[in-house]
Amino acid sequence: MDLIEIGRKAKKAAGYLNKLGVERKNEGLRQAARALVDEQDVILSANRQDVERAVQSGMSRGLVDRLELNPDRIQGMADGLMQVAALEDPVGEVVSMKQRPNGLMIGKKRVPLGVIGIIYEARPNVTADAFGLCFKTGNAVILKGGSDAIASNQAIVSIMQKALKTAGILETSVQLITDSDREVTKKLMRLNQYVDVLIPRGGAGLIRTVVENSTVPVIETGTGNCHIYVDEGADLDMALNIIVNAKTQRIGVCNACESLIVNRAEAKRFLPLLAETMREKQVEVRADQDACMLIPEFLTAEECDWGMEYLDYKLSLKLVSSLDEAIAHINQYNTGHSEAIITRNYANAQRFLEEIDAAAVYVNASTRFTDGEEFGFGAEIGISTQKLHARGPMGLEALTTFKYIIYGNGQVRQ
Amino acid sequence: MDLIEIGRKAKKAAGYLNKLGVERKNEGLRQAARALVDEQDVILSANRQDVERAVQSGMSRGLVDRLELNPDRIQGMADGLMQVAALEDPVGEVVSMKQRPNGLMIGKKRVPLGVIGIIYEARPNVTADAFGLCFKTGNAVILKGGSDAIASNQAIVSIMQKALKTAGILETSVQLITDSDREVTKKLMRLNQYVDVLIPRGGAGLIRTVVENSTVPVIETGTGNCHIYVDEGADLDMALNIIVNAKTQRIGVCNACESLIVNRAEAKRFLPLLAETMREKQVEVRADQDACMLIPEFLTAEECDWGMEYLDYKLSLKLVSSLDEAIAHINQYNTGHSEAIITRNYANAQRFLEEIDAAAVYVNASTRFTDGEEFGFGAEIGISTQKLHARGPMGLEALTTFKYIIYGNGQVRQ
Repeated sequence: MDLIEIGRKAKKAAGYLNKLGVERKNEGLRQAARALVDEQDVILSANRQDVERAVQSGMSRGLVDRLELNPDRIQGMADGLMQVAALEDPVGEVVSMKQRPNGLMIGKKRVPLGVIGIIYEARPNVTADAFGLCFKTGNAVILKGGSDAIASNQAIVSIMQKALKTAGILETSVQLITDSDREVTKKLMRLNQYVDVLIPRGGAGLIRTVVENSTVPVIETGTGNCHIYVDEGADLDMALNIIVNAKTQRIGVCNACESLIVNRAEAKRFLPLLAETMREKQVEVRADQDACMLIPEFLTAEECDWGMEYLDYKLSLKLVSSLDEAIAHINQYNTGHSEAIITRNYANAQRFLEEIDAAAVYVNASTRFTDGEEFGFGAEIGISTQKLHARGPMGLEALTTFKYIIYGNGQVRQ
Repeated sequence: MDLIEIGRKAKKAAGYLNKLGVERKNEGLRQAARALVDEQDVILSANRQDVERAVQSGMSRGLVDRLELNPDRIQGMADGLMQVAALEDPVGEVVSMKQRPNGLMIGKKRVPLGVIGIIYEARPNVTADAFGLCFKTGNAVILKGGSDAIASNQAIVSIMQKALKTAGILETSVQLITDSDREVTKKLMRLNQYVDVLIPRGGAGLIRTVVENSTVPVIETGTGNCHIYVDEGADLDMALNIIVNAKTQRIGVCNACESLIVNRAEAKRFLPLLAETMREKQVEVRADQDACMLIPEFLTAEECDWGMEYLDYKLSLKLVSSLDEAIAHINQYNTGHSEAIITRNYANAQRFLEEIDAAAVYVNASTRFTDGEEFGFGAEIGISTQKLHARGPMGLEALTTFKYIIYGNGQVRQ
């Protein structure tokens, strides 16, 4: 596997895609969607190999479930590509064009990023999803999926490549790295000559590895230690309803609530209600000492609990005396993802929105809404928890950049 | 020098600056500007120590010149801060606010990045410039200047800190790392807990070091291997005028022209004119074989010349048979900075703007215009040659990010 050759082909494909035009890009997406469904037997048979290997090697049930494909899931991948085809193409928009005093016309035009590398784990549906979003925005994509899903990914990519070829489109627009050697992944992270950006999708460990080893610019995604703060005087029914949703509607997602902050003024009324509901929902509460005094069934939180993304039926709980204390605690322990206040107090709502440092800050709503579809972006490549380039749910626009186009008539600088 | 402590103070200052408001930020900038002029004797005396040390250690005349301050240069630094005070503050703008079908109001609000680290070389004026731009946009800044300018930088920072204190503003809004140990710089590059972005300002070596060692997100600035392509049928007087400007108006800058591409159809007419002018301007031309056949005084270019940022009275020259060949060559060797075509051909101008992959693409104008002031941004922190976050000249907006603010009334996700 010659990574330089893959990089070179991807860069060439990026130049080609930049000129392809939205109609042909959409046609490529639709052909790929149809091919996935038409040739699903090939994908399902490859996937069975992956699943058998995984089961033999003792992979956990949860992970095997993420790896396993079936006709419904393949239809879901195809539907995703069709949806992306129907979205508006952000590329080509000239967002501003101004004439300078010297007569130069300076325009700012939205263009593809170029070559995007996606490093991900065992879910083979990411293969089609990531291709769709990158391709729609005129980017060539190099995929490096988890070795557990290698046969599935190879089947999916080769079917999509064939579909592109049938549509008369350069098939190297999407390439898969099949070598599972970790050194190859490390080389990809340093392929600055050919790769414009890397997006890791997966668990905290994968993301940390990419951030620490990559010299190619990275968009960090994913980790969410999301808090909900129940303010003094809050509507406690609303608070409970939102907490149940944010904690338990889906457990393993980055926008789930992991930590609850409750104003002491509400503790006596609220904690018994909370304890009852969390018992029903089988959520383990790890609380600070004062909360444990009120509700003996709560476990005692350790310092490390405040920074934990449990992704599980667990919730940390801290009592505070003021909004200031709540904001300071959240800004110390959060991961820059999503934070919510439940309040009836106008000034406190405004202060929370202003002072909390996170991608998405909510008043009286569940943190679970931090999501490309819910934000109206139509699709999402991930949720950025860094501040550079893109923050929060990343739709198609996050996969583009700008260039300045300048029209002169002989101007030189004085 | 406790870097963790510096980081902690910077993060605290960032939270403080986020709430400070534009009037008080401007007052801080004006106080700092006045203090630099009022206390210039302290700066000049510190600078003399740096200069003497530099001369004794055999620093080149050019570098000593960049290091040396005088009353005019200090006035320039103060004027820069006053100019930044007069610019519009981009922070706080809500660029969009939309209601979703479920009633959630989702707004996208421009906010400071947080804590910015600037790593730079021997020019002490960067100390005031970088502070001004970061402070205006509500960011706390950690400065790490070159050890050659350490006394000057200490004097400048402590005067600015005192001025902030006088204005009632947290002086840790700007901090200087005075430890010249390289390990400290490396630690700064991995201070992800406290630093949101690093911007290296300096030569290619410094920038490479930061890109390769940093786990904090980096905005890569600076290197410019800028090309000018002289198209078939171009106005050759205009071409010559622009080339002279782009190559010789200032030699050591990243937007200077380093490489010339000439269509063969114009070679016989144009190269003798070029040779004469370059001789006058004492520019050494390193040309491909065919151009050397026409003009024997040109030196023969080696392969490595095509990728060179000379920053000197040197120019590489290549003949091409077509616009396609010119675009392919430029896209292979450029550094993503600034590229120009000189042409009378409408379709070729449009194709060049479309297909060249660079931050700024010009038709019939000098590459020297790639600059924050010339683009109308009022000031610039550097020129980004990467595609993430900011591309081309970076004004105040490049020092900001967004957060989503979401107003709900009890919504939970279905």
